[in-house]
Amino acid sequence: MKEKLLVIGSVAYDSIETPIDSANFILGGSASYAALAASFFAPTQIVGIVGNDFKDSDVKRLTARNIDISGLKMDAEKPTFFWRGKYHEDFNGRETLDVRLNAFEGYMPELNEAAKMSKYVLLGNIAPETQEAALNAIRDPEFVILDSMDLWIQTANAKLKELIKRADMLILNDSEAKMLTDNRNLIVAGDALLQMGAKCAIVKNGEYGAMLFHKDGFFTVPAYPVRALHDPTGAGDSFAGALAGYIAGEGRTDFETIKRGMVAGSATASLTVESFSCYKLEETGISEIKRRCEYITSISKI
Amino acid sequence: MKEKLLVIGSVAYDSIETPIDSANFILGGSASYAALAASFFAPTQIVGIVGNDFKDSDVKRLTARNIDISGLKMDAEKPTFFWRGKYHEDFNGRETLDVRLNAFEGYMPELNEAAKMSKYVLLGNIAPETQEAALNAIRDPEFVILDSMDLWIQTANAKLKELIKRADMLILNDSEAKMLTDNRNLIVAGDALLQMGAKCAIVKNGEYGAMLFHKDGFFTVPAYPVRALHDPTGAGDSFAGALAGYIAGEGRTDFETIKRGMVAGSATASLTVESFSCYKLEETGISEIKRRCEYITSISKI
Repeated sequence: MKEKLLVIGSVAYDSIETPIDSANFILGGSASYAALAASFFAPTQIVGIVGNDFKDSDVKRLTARNIDISGLKMDAEKPTFFWRGKYHEDFNGRETLDVRLNAFEGYMPELNEAAKMSKYVLLGNIAPETQEAALNAIRDPEFVILDSMDLWIQTANAKLKELIKRADMLILNDSEAKMLTDNRNLIVAGDALLQMGAKCAIVKNGEYGAMLFHKDGFFTVPAYPVRALHDPTGAGDSFAGALAGYIAGEGRTDFETIKRGMVAGSATASLTVESFSCYKLEETGISEIKRRCEYITSISKI
Repeated sequence: MKEKLLVIGSVAYDSIETPIDSANFILGGSASYAALAASFFAPTQIVGIVGNDFKDSDVKRLTARNIDISGLKMDAEKPTFFWRGKYHEDFNGRETLDVRLNAFEGYMPELNEAAKMSKYVLLGNIAPETQEAALNAIRDPEFVILDSMDLWIQTANAKLKELIKRADMLILNDSEAKMLTDNRNLIVAGDALLQMGAKCAIVKNGEYGAMLFHKDGFFTVPAYPVRALHDPTGAGDSFAGALAGYIAGEGRTDFETIKRGMVAGSATASLTVESFSCYKLEETGISEIKRRCEYITSISKI
């Protein structure tokens, strides 16, 4: 049965410079990327906060995807969380040039009744403390997906580890998995994430794909081969969002469903990185996602 | 029909220090690793040179695998090519502490009649000039696999590019593919290898697996998940050797055969890195290779 997905995270305006293009004040943030990606697979509710500069056109992008924005708070006093970043030559790493928390500063999610009743929850990539506050407000979550990153491993390690014990799925990239578990062997690091208490763990390997560590087995999915990289921002959020949406949309959380969800995540993230924000994903939609899912399946077929 | 494989490359003694163990004067070199790996899939002939210190026990390791050593020359004046290396903490890179070409210095392959008649040829990882000399001596090669590395891209670029035009399959790792094609996008770099004239190209991605760029399609194979890394030396040579052996053993060079050959390469290389030299591979043999091939197939099944 198709279930609803609750996505909690940041909603931001990003100004991004890549080696080939630049854009200013485009919709970003972990919750925006994740909710837009999830919306192709399940009814999605977004919980977060925006500022007084949040554009009607961006509200419309969310509602056009039938995303429930009843839990998207607006701070009338401050502008939206802002991030400015620049990718190095050949997209080899990036640096943050400016970050202004603005409305996001001190934000603690307030969940409305619809959000509190959620069964499928994606705790998008924000501070573990904020993720925890949201999780505590949900009455009876059935499947909690926890996305995180190096920043929180370094600055909120203990809180992150507490949260991991409550996660049905933990998502990190390869270097983060190694950092968190203090192990350089990717496979041993993945095993160690389960020992930390996550029910299952997904390790993202960028252009190489992703790995699933699960009690029922190990699984690898290749990345969709992207030839026209435009902006890598939000790739991880899109992967997590589409995966979470797929699982909620199927209303199943078994090993096989998660595997197919990773294909959906890989396909969806590949569309995200082919434009700024989610413009290409929103434009091409589910038909191109499905085509890419089939292609990913074909290139892994032995 | 099962065809013979000719393997040309270096035969060396290695002294290796890893973060967990060390070994002295163990059988190494691209041809040794490749021929031992190939021998599980096809009748294999090795062409190369050893020195006056070459041990009977190492000759026996080759002949125990039914490897034809009639083209393995012995230099009575000099010792065997010697390499001493040390892996950094957590196997994160390595450094060469000593290298002595010894008998290998100025070596130009002399092919006997059996070698000259070869149809399936693996030009193992040595100087392109030496690879070319061997290839020129083969009368009517049907499938030529060219293995190379960063050293030759940097020091013998033009000769390598000439050879690539004659290769039915080029094997490089990800950073080498990017270096050779001067492109940071792995997929575009893979495409560019075909434009350089290789009939097909395999890009190895270490612990993530490998990719095949082929006129009939794109394919990815995951690495076998190694939890007990002992010594990464020879992983690439073993992968190339098992892949080449598989193709020769099948006597077919189509897309589907190459895909299955990559699985064989991945499985075989995972055994190589779980011990020094090829000790574990030789000990566990084809039954464990087959088990790992099946496991690799299972973890990529969507």
